[in-house]
Amino acid sequence: MRIFRVEATLVATARIGNLDHHRLLVVTERGSGSKQVAVDPVGCKIGDWVIACGSSAARDAAGSKDYPSDLTIVGIIDYWDEASPGDARAAGASGGEVRR
Amino acid sequence: MRIFRVEATLVATARIGNLDHHRLLVVTERGSGSKQVAVDPVGCKIGDWVIACGSSAARDAAGSKDYPSDLTIVGIIDYWDEASPGDARAAGASGGEVRR
Amino acid sequence: MRIFRVEATLVATARIGNLDHHRLLVVTERGSGSKQVAVDPVGCKIGDWVIACGSSAARDAAGSKDYPSDLTIVGIIDYWDEASPGDARAAGASGGEVRR
Amino acid sequence: MRIFRVEATLVATARIGNLDHHRLLVVTERGSGSKQVAVDPVGCKIGDWVIACGSSAARDAAGSKDYPSDLTIVGIIDYWDEASPGDARAAGASGGEVRR
Amino acid sequence: MRIFRVEATLVATARIGNLDHHRLLVVTERGSGSKQVAVDPVGCKIGDWVIACGSSAARDAAGSKDYPSDLTIVGIIDYWDEASPGDARAAGASGGEVRR
Repeated sequence: MRIFRVEATLVATARIGNLDHHRLLVVTERGSGSKQVAVDPVGCKIGDWVIACGSSAARDAAGSKDYPSDLTIVGIIDYWDEASPGDARAAGASGGEVRR
Repeated sequence: MRIFRVEATLVATARIGNLDHHRLLVVTERGSGSKQVAVDPVGCKIGDWVIACGSSAARDAAGSKDYPSDLTIVGIIDYWDEASPGDARAAGASGGEVRR
Repeated sequence: MRIFRVEATLVATARIGNLDHHRLLVVTERGSGSKQVAVDPVGCKIGDWVIACGSSAARDAAGSKDYPSDLTIVGIIDYWDEASPGDARAAGASGGEVRR
Repeated sequence: MRIFRVEATLVATARIGNLDHHRLLVVTERGSGSKQVAVDPVGCKIGDWVIACGSSAARDAAGSKDYPSDLTIVGIIDYWDEASPGDARAAGASGGEVRR
Repeated sequence: MRIFRVEATLVATARIGNLDHHRLLVVTERGSGSKQVAVDPVGCKIGDWVIACGSSAARDAAGSKDYPSDLTIVGIIDYWDEASPGDARAAGASGGEVRR
């Protein structure tokens, strides 16, 4: 799973029929800063740090094998503690800890 | 899902038999600027900003589990409102809001 | 689908048994210039610009759900017309139009 | 499979129901330094070098076809011996050997 | 399929149960130089140039739909002849021909 920050709610009136049931959120990936769109079955707020699942598991995570998602939010991050911040910094990570 | 802009209609006379039923569009990914080809079951116009689904969900989104697509347009973006444009700009995003 | 140029025929004598039936081609991706190997059920010539399908759809495109391909050529590009060459050039695209 | 170092245990109270049974670990990819979150059915310690499996195989590796994972740890690396460190260094690898 | 060079045999004592039957090899991707771990059902030697299959086809290529692989070697490259080395060099490729 990759780590994203929730940025905005996406409005897309013209869409395929089976893309309902869930909100679509614009999310920014931690590190690369790239923007993507994720399905939200969890109920996130703008500014939340979340983990999202891609690949074929994104469909199961959205609640159905037929749901056309390739990126589904599966959890809201509370926090993590990095055991070795020195190593992480050497590897190019930009920050130490995510905490809501 | 990733965000693309529709650039052109692709003409490919020699193709495998089950790649019919839908138009193929050349699309440019937001941010990276890379060009890809997407199946269009929605009905887009040149210049539309769209969200497209990859992975195995691209086949379902094209209407059939046997459809040979790895990138299918699932919706046309109306707009989104970024809650924190300052953060987004720091992360390298090129613009603040997409609006048709 | 992504866009590639056909570079060469690959010779690989030692291979797994179900990798038969189709030619293997070395292809170069447009934009990144990265070289990959694609299965060719279409019948391409060296120098052709093609679209190739990845993900699980690459197996269907090769003719069977058991075919071990993650990149299958699905069509030969005739041409496309970019509606907004100015935008495309700004986004880092190297050329304007592909035409055989 | 790609190579990661285990950095931390992730705490995510709000999550989808079927993301239980296994711990979630923050891991850093060797080479790119990007941080991702992996499911751990093996039982890793902070600092372990591991191999993790993506794509649809991440679900099987987590023990069930319905498990919503796109990155699952499948083994802890003891060591490897590189036969040609000169070549590897030329290709941009940062180190020669991983040894716990 | 992508192109790799076999670097080393990986030793990973602690691993999930269904990751048996095949050797695990550390491989370096041509071009990017990134190191990954591939399942080897072919029988490669250190130094071989190989093609490896990702996505869900990696499981089939390893011999079973339940095998937890996302990268499986499917063939050993004998050689290929590039028709247009000038173009390839312009696109950033580092070499002209791979020959064992």
